[in-house]
Amino acid sequence: MPIPVKAYAAQSPTSPLAPYDFSRRDLREDDVEIDILYCGVCHSDLHTARADWGEAFSIYPVVPGHEIIGRVRNVGKNVTKHKVGDLVGVGCMVDSCRECSPCQHGLEQYCENGMTGTYSSRDRRDGSVTQGGYSTAVVVCEDFVLRVPENLDTKAVAPLLCAGITTYSPLRHWGVKAGSKVAVVGLGGLGHMAIKLAKAMGAEVSLFTRSPGKEADAHRLGADRVILSTDEAQMQAAGNQFDLIIDTVPYDHDLKPYVPTLALDGTLVLVGLVGDIGNTVSTVPLIMGRRSIAGSVIGGIPETQEMLDFCGKHNIVPDVEMIDMQTINEAYERMLKSDVKYRFVIDLASLKG
Amino acid sequence: MPIPVKAYAAQSPTSPLAPYDFSRRDLREDDVEIDILYCGVCHSDLHTARADWGEAFSIYPVVPGHEIIGRVRNVGKNVTKHKVGDLVGVGCMVDSCRECSPCQHGLEQYCENGMTGTYSSRDRRDGSVTQGGYSTAVVVCEDFVLRVPENLDTKAVAPLLCAGITTYSPLRHWGVKAGSKVAVVGLGGLGHMAIKLAKAMGAEVSLFTRSPGKEADAHRLGADRVILSTDEAQMQAAGNQFDLIIDTVPYDHDLKPYVPTLALDGTLVLVGLVGDIGNTVSTVPLIMGRRSIAGSVIGGIPETQEMLDFCGKHNIVPDVEMIDMQTINEAYERMLKSDVKYRFVIDLASLKG
Repeated sequence: MPIPVKAYAAQSPTSPLAPYDFSRRDLREDDVEIDILYCGVCHSDLHTARADWGEAFSIYPVVPGHEIIGRVRNVGKNVTKHKVGDLVGVGCMVDSCRECSPCQHGLEQYCENGMTGTYSSRDRRDGSVTQGGYSTAVVVCEDFVLRVPENLDTKAVAPLLCAGITTYSPLRHWGVKAGSKVAVVGLGGLGHMAIKLAKAMGAEVSLFTRSPGKEADAHRLGADRVILSTDEAQMQAAGNQFDLIIDTVPYDHDLKPYVPTLALDGTLVLVGLVGDIGNTVSTVPLIMGRRSIAGSVIGGIPETQEMLDFCGKHNIVPDVEMIDMQTINEAYERMLKSDVKYRFVIDLASLKG
Repeated sequence: MPIPVKAYAAQSPTSPLAPYDFSRRDLREDDVEIDILYCGVCHSDLHTARADWGEAFSIYPVVPGHEIIGRVRNVGKNVTKHKVGDLVGVGCMVDSCRECSPCQHGLEQYCENGMTGTYSSRDRRDGSVTQGGYSTAVVVCEDFVLRVPENLDTKAVAPLLCAGITTYSPLRHWGVKAGSKVAVVGLGGLGHMAIKLAKAMGAEVSLFTRSPGKEADAHRLGADRVILSTDEAQMQAAGNQFDLIIDTVPYDHDLKPYVPTLALDGTLVLVGLVGDIGNTVSTVPLIMGRRSIAGSVIGGIPETQEMLDFCGKHNIVPDVEMIDMQTINEAYERMLKSDVKYRFVIDLASLKG
C-alpha cells in the first residue's frame, strides 16, 4: 500500500513552495519507512526548487530537503540495519550503483554511474522521481539510512547530514589531526560546521572573513583566530601556514589572496562553489609551494556514519533556527541574504497537526 | 686565488649572449671546483637572460645554465662528499638557508628563505652574484653537488638536473608506481622526460598533444597511448582515468579539457607554466571527483640524487642535440619555436679550445 504524505513542493522554477500531497512507495524488502521529525534547509534545496543549475537537475514538482532526521516507523522484511523506533537520518543520497570502484570503497558520492539524489533524481529500480524531506515521511533503502546518536539535541542534528559531512569529509581526507592548522573561508552553514569539526579534531582553526562583525561568533564556535581578508597586512602576516583551507563560499570569488596562506604541500579545497572560477588563478604559489586547489562533495555512507558518531562523542551539533514548514519561502529569502545563524531546520510537526 | 673562466653572458635584456671572461671565487673549505663538460639549455636560461620574469630575477651580466655536468678538479679542505676526478652535476640550486623546515626535510627547492639559484642569485655568504654553467668551470658548495652515474651517456645527462628532476619529483610525490595511469601534456624537454621516467616507474603512460605528427616519437619514448587533445571524441573517451597528469606546457592554456580526464582523487600538476591561468577553471570536475590542480618545482638535493641513481639503474637519459657555445643565440631562437628534440646541450669543449 502506498504511503500518503503531506509535503511542500515547488511546481515550477518560479512558483513558491506550497502544500503538496503525494504517496511514498510501498516498502520494498530492504526499505525503511521514516516518520520525519526535522529537515534542514540547504542552499541546494533552493537552487533545485528554482532550477538554478538548469532544468535537468529539477524534476517538478520538487519536494526539497536532504538533511532528514526521523524515527523508523516500519521496515521491509529483509531489513537488518534498523528497527522500528530508531532515531535515523537521511542525507543527500538514497542509492548508488553499488558496483563501481568508488561505490565498492564506500565513496558513493563519487559513484561513476551517478548517485541517486534524495530529491529530483530517478529511483534506480522503478524510475520514479525521488522526493525529499520537506514532508511527513520518507521511504529509503536501509543502506542509505544513518544511525543518529540519541544524546545529541535532535532538533539541531539535521544539518549534519549535508553541511556536516561536506566539511567533515575533506578534513578527514586531507589528514587533519591534533596540531593541524586549518583555515575556513566564509562563515555560513558550511563554515560554522567546518570550525566546530576542525576544532574537535584538535586543529588550530582560523576564519577568513570579509566582515569585521563576525569575530565574537567565530571564537564562540571554536575559531582560534579571525583574519580579515580585506586587510592586506593581516593577509600578508597569514602567509605560508595553513595545512588545509576549507573554502565554503558559494559564489565566484578570487582565490589569489588565500592560496599563498597555505603551507608547503597545503591544499585549498572548494566545497561551496559549483561553477566557474572567473578570477585568474596564478600558478606561482602552486608551483613554489607544491600547493593544491581541490574540490570535494559530501561524503560516503560509511564516512557519514563516522561523522555522526564523532559528533555524538564530541557533542557537536549545528547552530540552528527552527521554523515551521509554512514559513519556508520567507526562510529562503533570508537564506539568500545570509540572514541565518547558521542553518534553518524545519519542524515537521508543523505539517502534521 | 680566484679562478679565471671563460663564459657566455647576456649584458642586458636585449643583447645576445656573447663571450665574457670572469673569475670564480677561490675555494672555501666546503667548496668543489668543477671542470664543466656539458651544460643543458633550459627555457629558464632564456627567460632570465631576457628578463622575461622582471628585472628582479636578472642580475647582469647573466651567465645562464643550470644543467651542469663536469668533473671535480679541486676540493676545499673539509670536503668529504666528492673527490678529484668524480663525475658530478649541479642543478638549479647552489645553496639554501638549511635551517627552515623544508630545508631540514631535504626540500631545499621550497626553502622558506629562498634557495640560492645557480645563476642570477646572491651568494648567501659574500653577496656576490652567482653565475651558471655556460662557462668552463664552476665552484659550488659540496652539499649542492650531485654524483652522476658513470654508466650513462655523459653528453646527454645534463638535462636531468632540471628537466629530469622537475618531472621526477611530482611523479614520486604523487605516488606513481607500477600500474599507475599517468598522462603528460606537451612533448618538449620536460614532457619527453616525464614519459621516460613514468614508464620506467611502471606506469601506463599517455601523451596529450595538439599535433598529430608526434605519435611515432611519443611511442618511441615510451608512451602507451597518444591522445589528440583537439579531438573531442578522443577527449571524451579519455575521461575519468588518470591518477596523475604532468602538465609541462610553458604558456597559458585551458585546463578545462584535461581535468575531467583525471580519475577520482587524481591530480593535475603544473610544472611548466609560471604565471596566470587566464582561462576559467570550473570547480565542477574538482568537486565531483575530489580532483586537484597543483604545482611543483624541481626537487630537493636528496631527491635529485635519487633521480640520477634511478636513471643510472634504468639507463635513462634525455634525447639531446649537441651544440657549440658559439651557436647559443641560434639555439635560443630554435627553442622558442620548439624546434629541438628535445633539449640542447652545450659542449663546453667548444669554449676551451
